[in-house]
Amino acid sequence: MDTWMRFMSSDGGIVFGRVESGYLHEYESLDQPVPTGAVLSTRALTPLAPCAPGKVIALWNNYHALAAKLDKPVPTHPLFLLKPADSVIGAGEPIRRPLSYTGKIVYEGELGIVIGRRCRDASVAEAGDAIFGYTIVNDVTAADLLNESPHFPQWCRAKGFDTFCCIGPAIVSGFEWRHARLVTTLDGVERQNYPLADMVFSPAEQVSLISQDLTLEPGDVIACGTSLGVGSIRDGATVSITIDAIGTLSNTLRAARADTVAQVRSNETTNAV
Amino acid sequence: MDTWMRFMSSDGGIVFGRVESGYLHEYESLDQPVPTGAVLSTRALTPLAPCAPGKVIALWNNYHALAAKLDKPVPTHPLFLLKPADSVIGAGEPIRRPLSYTGKIVYEGELGIVIGRRCRDASVAEAGDAIFGYTIVNDVTAADLLNESPHFPQWCRAKGFDTFCCIGPAIVSGFEWRHARLVTTLDGVERQNYPLADMVFSPAEQVSLISQDLTLEPGDVIACGTSLGVGSIRDGATVSITIDAIGTLSNTLRAARADTVAQVRSNETTNAV
Repeated sequence: MDTWMRFMSSDGGIVFGRVESGYLHEYESLDQPVPTGAVLSTRALTPLAPCAPGKVIALWNNYHALAAKLDKPVPTHPLFLLKPADSVIGAGEPIRRPLSYTGKIVYEGELGIVIGRRCRDASVAEAGDAIFGYTIVNDVTAADLLNESPHFPQWCRAKGFDTFCCIGPAIVSGFEWRHARLVTTLDGVERQNYPLADMVFSPAEQVSLISQDLTLEPGDVIACGTSLGVGSIRDGATVSITIDAIGTLSNTLRAARADTVAQVRSNETTNAV
Repeated sequence: MDTWMRFMSSDGGIVFGRVESGYLHEYESLDQPVPTGAVLSTRALTPLAPCAPGKVIALWNNYHALAAKLDKPVPTHPLFLLKPADSVIGAGEPIRRPLSYTGKIVYEGELGIVIGRRCRDASVAEAGDAIFGYTIVNDVTAADLLNESPHFPQWCRAKGFDTFCCIGPAIVSGFEWRHARLVTTLDGVERQNYPLADMVFSPAEQVSLISQDLTLEPGDVIACGTSLGVGSIRDGATVSITIDAIGTLSNTLRAARADTVAQVRSNETTNAV
């Protein structure tokens, strides 16, 4: 297993590479994993999300235990929505409550698949080879928006806000997902603890089937869906999601600033049609 | 009004600029609209989609006439889904039937808003200033997939296939959308003919409200939704969408190749869980 991270250096540049014993061994990029020869102490670097996906594909209903609880059949093809690139933040960055939204915000701890090479109409074997590694995703959701309209479920809006896709802290290649568990805590209290082996579609199956719908690009992330124990985050609370071999992804929900909210409300009045 | 296009040159490079009387006056880029001084004959160039959006935001139910026909109330906030970057093609490029899908494929002629500068929590006035110009979008949909699962409507999958977002032929800045009509023909027979003024949310209102959900980036496209006359495309048929001041966006639906379909079917058998 190798651990891969992405950082901002003190001059504002972005560096990516393999991390070992507190040092980053820099590589060209995720899809060109060639060492540059540079070795940097991670202490002088600011961690970022470990990749910069062009898109995040987020699965719904991909664990047997959750499907049973929801009393839904398991799907025959991955059911997914898209989260935009601007929704991505790294470990330690704040989740920002949208200025226009006062409702319930929900965490979902998930395994993330990171794509290493362009992938279209891939067989399961080809799909397995296209996986660069695995990370952790908090698929944050403005739950009250999902069914706000009785005519159109707003999956992309509810899950697409800036900062609503926490990814990190690292990508681990050679990770044996079948033997791992995912544990989510909310302000230190355990809320999710489930085995990844309970997935409906395995990672290679997800990549293969989704690659028949759309082209997956290097750095794209598939959030594999969540299982039991999803819950809401109060403003100021911290969600920490751990998969032992990958690390812990912690993010705190920051309340919207009252002065900025007032400005947006005033814009909304102007927008009213 | 200015007309902006993007081309591939004979050496494989991409050029963007203002087109006048058969010549491209090259500009640095859409978000840096600074002339480079180069002037190229468009005859030696291959047209591409006029921008390369990181994401396409596609609206549902944004015309009064269609809302009335569907017997749905008009929305109080734009209802949207996301189409990925890889779904984008330009005028004249083929729409490819997905190898795994034999069902109905539908055209939707739409006005497209092209974002010129990064935009977040924008007022309507700021949003108007952030619009670079307007284009035409064919928001193609694999209609039978939308409600294939009774538990999860697959908007992103049905509308997100590679080649399912036709954009072009040009971007026009200074375009007066209030006085324009959109006309769609299928193999030369008129199928849609509606006034853009029937929109529920105006372009500036869309940009303002959506910018409160997610950050809009230069080159991103908002497909403003369609109106009456949506219909299905037979394999081999050509959809042409015209807005007089912008031009005509024509794309032909190409059938999947039988040999490749057989390969994918065989992969699917392997994928079965």
